[in-house]
Amino acid sequence: MTRHTATDERLRLAVVGVGAVGQSVAELAGEYGYSVVALADSDGAAMNPDGVDVADALDRKARTGSVGDGAVGTDDVLAADYDVLVEATPTTLGDAEPGFGHVRTALERDRDVVLANKGPVAERFGDVMALERDSEGTVLFEATVGGAIPVLSTVADFGPEHITAARGVLNGTANFILSRMAAEGLGYEHVLAEAQDMGVAEADPAFDVEGTDAALKCVILANVLSLARADSPAEAREFALADATVEGIKDIPGSALELAAEDGRTVRLIAEATPDAVTVGPRLVSRNGTLAVTGTRNIVQLETEHAGRLNVSGRGAGGPETATAVLADVRRLE
Amino acid sequence: MTRHTATDERLRLAVVGVGAVGQSVAELAGEYGYSVVALADSDGAAMNPDGVDVADALDRKARTGSVGDGAVGTDDVLAADYDVLVEATPTTLGDAEPGFGHVRTALERDRDVVLANKGPVAERFGDVMALERDSEGTVLFEATVGGAIPVLSTVADFGPEHITAARGVLNGTANFILSRMAAEGLGYEHVLAEAQDMGVAEADPAFDVEGTDAALKCVILANVLSLARADSPAEAREFALADATVEGIKDIPGSALELAAEDGRTVRLIAEATPDAVTVGPRLVSRNGTLAVTGTRNIVQLETEHAGRLNVSGRGAGGPETATAVLADVRRLE
Repeated sequence: MTRHTATDERLRLAVVGVGAVGQSVAELAGEYGYSVVALADSDGAAMNPDGVDVADALDRKARTGSVGDGAVGTDDVLAADYDVLVEATPTTLGDAEPGFGHVRTALERDRDVVLANKGPVAERFGDVMALERDSEGTVLFEATVGGAIPVLSTVADFGPEHITAARGVLNGTANFILSRMAAEGLGYEHVLAEAQDMGVAEADPAFDVEGTDAALKCVILANVLSLARADSPAEAREFALADATVEGIKDIPGSALELAAEDGRTVRLIAEATPDAVTVGPRLVSRNGTLAVTGTRNIVQLETEHAGRLNVSGRGAGGPETATAVLADVRRLE
Repeated sequence: MTRHTATDERLRLAVVGVGAVGQSVAELAGEYGYSVVALADSDGAAMNPDGVDVADALDRKARTGSVGDGAVGTDDVLAADYDVLVEATPTTLGDAEPGFGHVRTALERDRDVVLANKGPVAERFGDVMALERDSEGTVLFEATVGGAIPVLSTVADFGPEHITAARGVLNGTANFILSRMAAEGLGYEHVLAEAQDMGVAEADPAFDVEGTDAALKCVILANVLSLARADSPAEAREFALADATVEGIKDIPGSALELAAEDGRTVRLIAEATPDAVTVGPRLVSRNGTLAVTGTRNIVQLETEHAGRLNVSGRGAGGPETATAVLADVRRLE
């Protein structure tokens, strides 16, 4: 597509979804040299071809619940003149709507798309790739795996066809709970309640503690690895959540952690992707080993041909952190 | 420059320097989809516009000491028709010759350059960048920092202007020695001799144990960080080895490691780059902390704005390992 079409030559972002990530993208865009020409939440939108006043829009959302005044909405944003659609609505499963529809609309208009929403590339990867092939636009999705940690760009950079597996700790909430259980000798329910008080766990923690979130990230990784090894897109094995073997952390007794500790080990929720499979479950790891990150930190190990194991770790969640991954994708599109 | 000009559309590499890295680049190039049209060591060269028989050339080198038969040499290789020059001659200080001259010749011919040789970008970064600005060619140098670990591409990808510091363990030999001293309670000289027997340390270990090698890597990082923050290349602060504050590991007594261990800590040779300074020296680090990698493993921590700390670790040296970084750079040029 034609880039830098605005008179001030800054890439123009349309941000759909104003949760923690979408808000941070809007707030940081100016510092990164981009202009936000549209910002939409589920109740309305703020639009301005010369750049939305982001602080004003977020202030309106804090007061009224929406960045807009009801005059325009997401459909208007999708039809607006922008360079890159940032899709940051909540991850949904199955048909991955409404995120998938937003991606489709943007690609059909030959616009680039940066996803923070895991749904479209976890649940409908083949559909998204097919739309991208028919479009002048490009889809990038670094923010969907590992928050601020450059997992997908490291995979792309190294060459996904030379990576045999990716594994690691990809859910900070589950890792926080396991770290606390091991360090304090406390039970699962106790630590979960504590994590909920601290805002580290959601009121409904199922998505994190049952392994779904980590599985979606590894589904995305497996899709990338599989596509890179296929002779043609049609021959790539496509993964969705239903193809993953997933076990969460709810049933781990404190005694298991004590036994592990006696042996110099601990338990982590390890998610693994290969070109052929996705598995998530509690695993024994060396207590001082690379995979035993503590707290909400995430880590990914890439098993490579010719270069051994690469590890990347950092903050796997958080609004500003994940926004940096979105904005790094935007930069790749410049 | 015009790419894919060969009839088979594979990028054509000219590899100058046939040490461990140059040899591995030549051996792996075919698997990565590239053709080696020239391969030069200090005594001769093998050239073939349709692709050098790498196994044959390396066999000749094993028998005779050179990949060539003396009929042609490096000058012929530099004048040959290739797409990317892979400069893998040994790192030299000061004028960084002959590596710098090879880079200049290639850029003046509007060819791309991938460096494994640290000299040109550590000792003459400004000169290399100026040559690149006047050329249609591009210079990449991932392999010069951290072997297989994608340090520079992670920096580039995240945005060097959003990284405030890079620090870590960047010399595997020094780290092996410190790890062994701490684990076995042995003295420096004993472990050095052991490392030399194992091939982990050179007969003349000064480059590694005095901190020079780690300093050169951080000089390169500091140059990248500084350039990204400058308003113009002329205003960027340029670093060379002479600008680094460097202390090695030779004078660390075993007793220092014992004292550190009593406090839950250990000693690592930590190199740090900021846009304003390069320092290398032994530092106390938490024994189970992120920086306390063991053996020859390397790690780099990037301090970022907005996203906290990113860690990347893996194999920081080795022929095939470092060759993967060279070949990742070649891919970026496609």
